[in-house]
Amino acid sequence: MNKLTLVKIGGNLINHADQLDTFLTDFALLPEPKILVHGGGNKASALSHQLGIKPQLVDGRRITFSADLDIVTMVYAGLINKQIVALLQAKGCNAMGLSGADANLITSVKRREQAINYGFVGDVKEVNTESIQHLLQRDISPVFCAITHDGAGQLLNTNADTVAAEIAVAMSHYYELSLIYCFEKKGVLKEVDNPDSLIEQINKKDFQQLKSDKIIADGMLPKMDNCFYALEKGVKKVIIGGAQVVGNQSSQHTEISLK
Amino acid sequence: MNKLTLVKIGGNLINHADQLDTFLTDFALLPEPKILVHGGGNKASALSHQLGIKPQLVDGRRITFSADLDIVTMVYAGLINKQIVALLQAKGCNAMGLSGADANLITSVKRREQAINYGFVGDVKEVNTESIQHLLQRDISPVFCAITHDGAGQLLNTNADTVAAEIAVAMSHYYELSLIYCFEKKGVLKEVDNPDSLIEQINKKDFQQLKSDKIIADGMLPKMDNCFYALEKGVKKVIIGGAQVVGNQSSQHTEISLK
Repeated sequence: MNKLTLVKIGGNLINHADQLDTFLTDFALLPEPKILVHGGGNKASALSHQLGIKPQLVDGRRITFSADLDIVTMVYAGLINKQIVALLQAKGCNAMGLSGADANLITSVKRREQAINYGFVGDVKEVNTESIQHLLQRDISPVFCAITHDGAGQLLNTNADTVAAEIAVAMSHYYELSLIYCFEKKGVLKEVDNPDSLIEQINKKDFQQLKSDKIIADGMLPKMDNCFYALEKGVKKVIIGGAQVVGNQSSQHTEISLK
Repeated sequence: MNKLTLVKIGGNLINHADQLDTFLTDFALLPEPKILVHGGGNKASALSHQLGIKPQLVDGRRITFSADLDIVTMVYAGLINKQIVALLQAKGCNAMGLSGADANLITSVKRREQAINYGFVGDVKEVNTESIQHLLQRDISPVFCAITHDGAGQLLNTNADTVAAEIAVAMSHYYELSLIYCFEKKGVLKEVDNPDSLIEQINKKDFQQLKSDKIIADGMLPKMDNCFYALEKGVKKVIIGGAQVVGNQSSQHTEISLK
């Protein structure tokens, strides 16, 4: 099986032009086929404020009404996606920016109204692995924003960590998959503000303990759920690390494993 | 030679959801390979105003400084592009939304500062016909916004009529090409507000006359220049018409010809 690396970068990394540039240089140099998934939450919230719309987030998930959907579509699929693609092209990586609507690559289902009405938020239904493979075979590196569609004309805002996990799982039928979550910290920390408190390995049992000890909490919980979901569904390796981990895999990071 | 239809739709058509929907239904039904290029000027100007930035246009060309470039990238490559793609997907057309940066499809050169400094505005240098052909061969219909890149990391705002003409010319080496400019009028009119004054045929000689008589003026002049450029460089057929011309080619329109 050929190797495929899927890297997800978060909003805080995207906000720092110099860190983003260093990361993209390393990403462009990866020798094997690669896919990038990006978030961009902060920039969307900034535009919301500029337009006088108060962004609403519940457990880090954005309530997405019609005006919010326009904003995330502009910021994720437009501004951030195309800026990243242009930078990667300049670094010799043949990047192609995509949403889930493009070539029907990722369909999702609008989340049902329950206790919270999330609005135009989608949960991934299907990843079109055949079309993604065609791009990879032509040495194109897909760069996904986390906008998907329902196949009936509606765009849907989707969690970027989940999009990354779902693409990784779907592609793991054809490739030996490494999934790397890059963010502003070195990995999972015991004390959130102490970079020396890195946890280098977390298996499922550790996770239960860390969760009940409230060491892993808040936004890190769904990220960890995505990591274990990916591993259980066929992804070979899952890492949470800082931007530098893509260029230097021996640098400190957290490796997630089932056992 | 196989046929290829390239349709360009303008901002006024995009602004009317019902007209856009009818147009996209017709576009999706075109039996031959097809490419869509869209503008979206009005929506970009509306967002500029909302953000307190006054859009500046000279002869219909947008002066594009850094903040303006962010706005057009958000509106063209994000909002309009992905909304069109999602609608086409719902109509059974396997659309893929693209900027010129994606897979390095269209490179351009930043326009030199002359009497007017247009800012981050690009003139098309090269169209990557091989990659576009690969998409068409997989029954994918590319949907281009008019954002291109210089290959060195800079996105550039490019005139959508010109992008359409340049793609048409480049692809005419491999396909028998029809280029259709769709806008809010039935075609070129003798009297701008009289829909019954349609001119059904315009050749190069007619154009000179219409120009010196000031019947064709303003924004229609560069559009006509694009039409003749395309015909001179190998495009087989060029039409200017309303949204309905794609679905019903026998409906009234203006056909542009060299002789």
